[in-house]
Amino acid sequence: MVRPVEGGVTAPGGFRAAGVACGIKRRGPAGAPAPLDLALIAADEPVPAAAVFTTNKAVAAPVVVSRDHLARSGGRAAAIVVNSGCANACTGAAGLEVARQMANAAASAIGCAGDQVLVASTGVIGVPLDIVKIRAGVGDASRALSAEGGAAATRAIMTTDPFPKSCAVAVAVPGGTITVGGMAKGSGMIEPRMATMLGFLTTDARIDPHVLDQALRHVVDESFNAITVDGECSTNDCVFALASGRSGVAVTRADDPMFLDALRHVAGHLAREIVRGGEGATKLVTVHVTGAASRDDAFLAARTIANSPLVKTAIHGGDPNWGRLVAAAGRSGAAFDLDHASVAIGPVPLFTFGVPHDERAADAAEVLKAREVTVAVDLGVGGHHEATMWTCDFSAEYVRINAEYRT
Amino acid sequence: MVRPVEGGVTAPGGFRAAGVACGIKRRGPAGAPAPLDLALIAADEPVPAAAVFTTNKAVAAPVVVSRDHLARSGGRAAAIVVNSGCANACTGAAGLEVARQMANAAASAIGCAGDQVLVASTGVIGVPLDIVKIRAGVGDASRALSAEGGAAATRAIMTTDPFPKSCAVAVAVPGGTITVGGMAKGSGMIEPRMATMLGFLTTDARIDPHVLDQALRHVVDESFNAITVDGECSTNDCVFALASGRSGVAVTRADDPMFLDALRHVAGHLAREIVRGGEGATKLVTVHVTGAASRDDAFLAARTIANSPLVKTAIHGGDPNWGRLVAAAGRSGAAFDLDHASVAIGPVPLFTFGVPHDERAADAAEVLKAREVTVAVDLGVGGHHEATMWTCDFSAEYVRINAEYRT
Repeated sequence: MVRPVEGGVTAPGGFRAAGVACGIKRRGPAGAPAPLDLALIAADEPVPAAAVFTTNKAVAAPVVVSRDHLARSGGRAAAIVVNSGCANACTGAAGLEVARQMANAAASAIGCAGDQVLVASTGVIGVPLDIVKIRAGVGDASRALSAEGGAAATRAIMTTDPFPKSCAVAVAVPGGTITVGGMAKGSGMIEPRMATMLGFLTTDARIDPHVLDQALRHVVDESFNAITVDGECSTNDCVFALASGRSGVAVTRADDPMFLDALRHVAGHLAREIVRGGEGATKLVTVHVTGAASRDDAFLAARTIANSPLVKTAIHGGDPNWGRLVAAAGRSGAAFDLDHASVAIGPVPLFTFGVPHDERAADAAEVLKAREVTVAVDLGVGGHHEATMWTCDFSAEYVRINAEYRT
Repeated sequence: MVRPVEGGVTAPGGFRAAGVACGIKRRGPAGAPAPLDLALIAADEPVPAAAVFTTNKAVAAPVVVSRDHLARSGGRAAAIVVNSGCANACTGAAGLEVARQMANAAASAIGCAGDQVLVASTGVIGVPLDIVKIRAGVGDASRALSAEGGAAATRAIMTTDPFPKSCAVAVAVPGGTITVGGMAKGSGMIEPRMATMLGFLTTDARIDPHVLDQALRHVVDESFNAITVDGECSTNDCVFALASGRSGVAVTRADDPMFLDALRHVAGHLAREIVRGGEGATKLVTVHVTGAASRDDAFLAARTIANSPLVKTAIHGGDPNWGRLVAAAGRSGAAFDLDHASVAIGPVPLFTFGVPHDERAADAAEVLKAREVTVAVDLGVGGHHEATMWTCDFSAEYVRINAEYRT
């Protein structure tokens, strides 16, 4: 059984972290403390590491460098450096050099090879990242590293997230106890051109890099890749995982149920927290698609529903508008049979096997008043595949946040 | 040269139209005239006809019936009946029967076979369409048919469109003059569950059904299929074309440049009017993608940009946020090279061959103050393919319109 523990990314043994202010984020009002904008996560030695990166073809410099380092180090890393306030994206060859120097600075500070450091950035696109500030920040952070540093690191990666996001769980297994920790940031894009989802997972399991990589990909598909705020995929998105081995418990298979359960718990929690903190969001919406002809179809329909502006505005307005769910599923490209399709909001069926039940609309409207809502669509083709995605409602506040002119 | 003429769908010879009130739309305030909600377009005899229908797999009854009639009649129709206020969608077998009876009512009234009548509906999903009201309306409309009836018909197909949309042009060709007329309605979804794009084109060209069909498909790809308000595709979308032959001018090839030019003019104008009247829209935005590796890539990138909530909110706010255009192109799936990509807003280049020009942001912000704006993205892969799409900005008003709770 998975049980929650304190400590976020530093909950598993073998990791220290720190969050410091290095002057990249704009200062707040006079007298306010400088905002934290550089996080360092360090393992006690180079450890197995894995990552998944944005599929956007416009990739930011830190994504290019981290991918390269992971390949060159054979899937081992001793540290991750992250800055907020500047995405180091659309910055050309100079930006790549800055990302490499950022890794080198951390390598010098903690004593490892440059390609054993992974880097990530979030913030404004198209603005150079100041390496002088980064070097000073990395120095400060390396001196501040501690096993209690997870909370500060979590705050240092925030841009305009409404709240910090961290999580840790422990799971007792035959050979001992495995702990998995994590922190993440969402896309809070009040600052123009800011749009990044970053996730960092740590564990004390003893696991090979390629097994960690497989487990990470498996879990990411059902967590970070199964959420949407506005259907946008950033230039900087990435999720990293490091495994210290300190628990002494070996995980030899990527489908180890106990380890996957713990990893899934942390990744899923962080992913849903990102949605809950989505721009302008007032509700966390679970979209559950069943009866699909294939897994791809199930996700295609779930993703189309989860990104539908009409579905998201209806939920925002508390309108049990099943017609919009049917229309979104129908246009998704997934195999769909209108005469056998069904829609429910929470426990209330509104459309069953092609027959509307508008008399239940008032019950469904009651369900939509909650902060967490599930909408379920059966595609009606008799398949046994299903998919779950998480999204948020779509509010006028989203438009206000993203239309604000700051140039 | 194409020149504008008056009369909309009844501008070409051989067509009459009418718009009447039959009680399907809700009445306005006491004393106000009953809203027009049934349109009839009649040719003087069965004439070549073509149509393109929604790709949504949840198709409404009138779409099923019109597709069937067009196939059974060998591409000939004598009339189109359209109602607003009720979509006759998600209405099962009973809805199909109502759509057939709607066609039969028009066939009796004007004297043709049932399968020579096409039908369309727009309005609320999941509510039965009252065939008694439709029959009475069709009777009234058939008696009201006139060559000046285009304007009333245009108003009768509106749901909550902010303005009626019609257009007609004439083009002088070697054998005489061809006239093309049209009317359309957009998706004004203030009424919950209302979301339909309908287009009706008429011409006096003498043209075979299969040539008309090819010409229509060609033109629709660059007009009605190249617009987006919110990325939603309805259960009822369709575009019809009828050709009376009255000009005496034969069009024998689907790529006849003069005919295509006239058809493209009318279809393009109506399509852009739909965007201009989009929900909450304050700006008409032309998205122009160049340098693509293929035509599909060009449209993929243009469509992703045109539907991007971040791009649309930035334009609404007058923010020359080229980073969001780069990110949308990058995530579209089209081949994209960040180091050679370029972005311009109006005539102002903001990102050229991978280099930002933020010093020009103020100039671009000036451009964004206009009611019509062009954004141009070169994908940087050196291809020669391009695509143009039209979209609107994304305002808080859109959310207010679609979140309003009416159950």
